Amino acid sequence: MMSVQGLAPLHRNSRDLPWVPFTPYSTTVKLKLLQVNPVTGQVITMFHVPGGEVLGVHDHHGAVIVYTVQGAWRYLEHQWTARAGDLVYETAGSRHTFLAEPGEDMVAFIVIEGALEFLDPQGHSMGKENWKTFLDRYYRFCEENRLRPVDLSRFE
Amino acid sequence: MMSVQGLAPLHRNSRDLPWVPFTPYSTTVKLKLLQVNPVTGQVITMFHVPGGEVLGVHDHHGAVIVYTVQGAWRYLEHQWTARAGDLVYETAGSRHTFLAEPGEDMVAFIVIEGALEFLDPQGHSMGKENWKTFLDRYYRFCEENRLRPVDLSRFE
Amino acid sequence: MMSVQGLAPLHRNSRDLPWVPFTPYSTTVKLKLLQVNPVTGQVITMFHVPGGEVLGVHDHHGAVIVYTVQGAWRYLEHQWTARAGDLVYETAGSRHTFLAEPGEDMVAFIVIEGALEFLDPQGHSMGKENWKTFLDRYYRFCEENRLRPVDLSRFE
Amino acid sequence: MMSVQGLAPLHRNSRDLPWVPFTPYSTTVKLKLLQVNPVTGQVITMFHVPGGEVLGVHDHHGAVIVYTVQGAWRYLEHQWTARAGDLVYETAGSRHTFLAEPGEDMVAFIVIEGALEFLDPQGHSMGKENWKTFLDRYYRFCEENRLRPVDLSRFE
Repeated sequence: MMSVQGLAPLHRNSRDLPWVPFTPYSTTVKLKLLQVNPVTGQVITMFHVPGGEVLGVHDHHGAVIVYTVQGAWRYLEHQWTARAGDLVYETAGSRHTFLAEPGEDMVAFIVIEGALEFLDPQGHSMGKENWKTFLDRYYRFCEENRLRPVDLSRFE
Repeated sequence: MMSVQGLAPLHRNSRDLPWVPFTPYSTTVKLKLLQVNPVTGQVITMFHVPGGEVLGVHDHHGAVIVYTVQGAWRYLEHQWTARAGDLVYETAGSRHTFLAEPGEDMVAFIVIEGALEFLDPQGHSMGKENWKTFLDRYYRFCEENRLRPVDLSRFE
Repeated sequence: MMSVQGLAPLHRNSRDLPWVPFTPYSTTVKLKLLQVNPVTGQVITMFHVPGGEVLGVHDHHGAVIVYTVQGAWRYLEHQWTARAGDLVYETAGSRHTFLAEPGEDMVAFIVIEGALEFLDPQGHSMGKENWKTFLDRYYRFCEENRLRPVDLSRFE
Repeated sequence: MMSVQGLAPLHRNSRDLPWVPFTPYSTTVKLKLLQVNPVTGQVITMFHVPGGEVLGVHDHHGAVIVYTVQGAWRYLEHQWTARAGDLVYETAGSRHTFLAEPGEDMVAFIVIEGALEFLDPQGHSMGKENWKTFLDRYYRFCEENRLRPVDLSRFE
């Protein structure tokens, strides 16, 4: 008889994973991808932005959870500033312009559902990001830097 | 270099899958399990209840989507009756008593997040249902009836 | 003291809701929108396609669950045909060309996470669909046809 | 005509929210609840455990994402130790015994889908936790400590 085997919890050691430039949008904004889910499309990543830097306008097609680990940031379209320890919950179908506050670098832990789309100053699409593009950027970085890649799409 | 392979869409042919009694809660209520997700716990199943039958009280720990394919049903706690073509969205943390209306058998397509818990008339737990219990019940039915089981937990 | 009030289950009566042409992609393919979630972006809708019709190529940025109620359909890119009672689970980040089989009209119940994007024959974007565009199309149809709209974005 | 208004992103300032003892399971383990979703049941919370403390066995009925902010911890059932910066993704339907490593207090950011259930040493249920119990515990703490509660269940 077939038996039902649950999956063990996944532990992803962040010290084993590289910070990868978030090309083509920026060479100084960096991502440390932690996990993607090829079934649901969920992406879990760290995000690092030098103080004072602007990332540009982007659309969220799904919900995004942002936990700020260090530094401070805001959206040009809103009044609040998120600091270390704060939660930002970005509802599906919203558009924002990201700005790290001057000073300390900003580091965040981010859970993305659906896709992101970055826009140029004229509002044209510069690129869409989903689990495949995040994973591909990580694999290309490993190849270029002769790092042994981890399969960040597997849960077992 | 590692390449990013997306998963093909999953097609589950309902004619190949059996109706399985929803034991121990009922022998006449039947489930045709279509898919489970061992990562998120999502369960996708058909549900068949003879006209006039009561299933009992249950808690929803996550959200549940019910599309009624045939027949009519309601919850004793609410005023509406769901008929073929209707949607019921059950919010997380709710408790209800299911009743199929007399007459035609009720058939529904159901997407369950989280877990269900069935309660006896005194409010004690009779059992908890999650992706593992649904899958295990299907495998046991296949074993007992000498059917070749499909691995309903795989997406590729 | 503030008290915790759960939300009652939502019942959406399909007989009260209209079939709305899926413009600008088609005038003969129709949607009956049942519910959207402005927080997560989930869209729940019925889908009606005349037998033999092709809808075109589209990307899924999130996962999509399709339960076929009537008729038969397939994706040009895959070998299976989905018939009444079947489940299709479309994984995030996939691209397909929808085709209803000749004969009976195809009707499906669909749960969409994230966004869809339709492409023209050259692979250029014809439009992106998320909870806002589905809801807006329904509101415009109600306005044009002097129907009283239901707020399909509310759960209470 | 009705118009489609998206929801602004939610910013939750962690300095405005209290650390609440995780009663009845512990008086020294503390939670800082950040947000709950009454539709899907998602719970977003900070978690604080003194170094060396054991929380006990619990079941996950849905998936749980844990980002470790400070300190180190492990599950007795597994070999890894999670440290600051690490991700743990707990798949649905798993059971573990939580242990903070001796030394620095452990702080984590946690996203819970579905429900948790805590078990006593004999395996009996000590209590189930979902969005309602997390929110109720926070409201009771505010009442007892004459704090003005924030409605952590609203997204607008």
